[in-house]
Amino acid sequence: MRYRTVLAYDGGAYHGFQRQVNAEPTIQSAVEAALLKITRCAVPIIGAGRTDAGVHATGQVIAFDCDWRHTPRDLQNALNAALPEDIAFRACCEAAPDFHPRFDALRCSYEYRLYVSPVRDPLARRYAWHRIGALDAEAVHQAVNYLVGEHDFSTFGSPPQGDNPVRMVYSADWIVRQGDRYSFTITATAFLYRMVRSIVGTLVQVGQGRMTAQAFGEVLASCDRSQSGPVAPAHGLTLTAVEYAD
Amino acid sequence: MRYRTVLAYDGGAYHGFQRQVNAEPTIQSAVEAALLKITRCAVPIIGAGRTDAGVHATGQVIAFDCDWRHTPRDLQNALNAALPEDIAFRACCEAAPDFHPRFDALRCSYEYRLYVSPVRDPLARRYAWHRIGALDAEAVHQAVNYLVGEHDFSTFGSPPQGDNPVRMVYSADWIVRQGDRYSFTITATAFLYRMVRSIVGTLVQVGQGRMTAQAFGEVLASCDRSQSGPVAPAHGLTLTAVEYAD
Repeated sequence: MRYRTVLAYDGGAYHGFQRQVNAEPTIQSAVEAALLKITRCAVPIIGAGRTDAGVHATGQVIAFDCDWRHTPRDLQNALNAALPEDIAFRACCEAAPDFHPRFDALRCSYEYRLYVSPVRDPLARRYAWHRIGALDAEAVHQAVNYLVGEHDFSTFGSPPQGDNPVRMVYSADWIVRQGDRYSFTITATAFLYRMVRSIVGTLVQVGQGRMTAQAFGEVLASCDRSQSGPVAPAHGLTLTAVEYAD
Repeated sequence: MRYRTVLAYDGGAYHGFQRQVNAEPTIQSAVEAALLKITRCAVPIIGAGRTDAGVHATGQVIAFDCDWRHTPRDLQNALNAALPEDIAFRACCEAAPDFHPRFDALRCSYEYRLYVSPVRDPLARRYAWHRIGALDAEAVHQAVNYLVGEHDFSTFGSPPQGDNPVRMVYSADWIVRQGDRYSFTITATAFLYRMVRSIVGTLVQVGQGRMTAQAFGEVLASCDRSQSGPVAPAHGLTLTAVEYAD
């Protein structure tokens, strides 16, 4: 039986989602170890998004095949008991035998959190990027509008080999929380490598007055990776949702 | 010169605020090490609240004496650069030579965070207590009302030796955030040892229907420590503010 599950994790202690030689632990290796322990299945898991080292998830979707005699809910509970505290299955159900979390995905959503303060906040440091200078939220709002729609996103990331760099962005928002805390959310068909973090690093340049909103639009249209701002750090980013036809 | 400062910290990696034999690191030892490095002052710091192991702070107040030739702001910046990422001075100013953060404090405020979910949330686990079953927020609201005013709080904690267990609670609130996330806030003259965590553990019993709000009032009035619910875990608790006459 193939299972489809929703996974949440704090990526802070992991070298990204995907199992790698010479870089442990990964989310994949931790989940596969729990699966092996509970179900005796040594089948690799497939994830919807290959999140980078340090990136978090609340809505990663993974699939795997295994024999299990009890309910999906029992499987979820047993796996959660076997996993470390910083990883948890939020949902688990049976899926069609050909369900593929990445190829079948229609849309993916990410959230990037940052906060502005003259002094770092020890309680925010694990899940938000600390910026010192004030940001012009109105200018950032204007820049964000350029992202929505179908664009070649080569400025902000690299596609997998042989793939094209065009992506459809359904929505992008810059949300102001509690004055000095910001949240950037974006939903698209899929994302290029480091795309969200490159967009955020460039939006912060707009907020700091180093680039106008109009120039942000031109940078996007240039399809020139060297025009992007710096890549924002991983710990502010969370994969929040993956959506399917059903 | 005596300095008065506001300190924030993630208590997760520390054995509480106060320096202890055989239990390192503590917040005090980390701050004193930074002070020694920056100012060559080996003077012990005094804190407003002796937070327990694992308890956080956004508004701890500490005082210390040292010679420093530059501005308080420079001192703050230098100390923050010398401290680990999980501790930061949020403010620093000169104080009267007899300023004492604990004896001069008029009111102290704490916040306790918890969330209800069938599955743990890896991104909330460091700063909020995970409860599985639903809570009756209306019953908890009613119970919280019993806390406001001057009471003998012996049910919920122990006073320092020779001190009396009466405290004035100025305000106490049970705030519902995003449906399944709760925040308990309380402001009082001062607190007994483990008082907030014992109150929260007992309020959760009310929320779970194991104790009525009226029974909570009777438990408070009993002044009997054995009537308290369990002590809620440290990682949900944050010292948020200490107020003075000025």
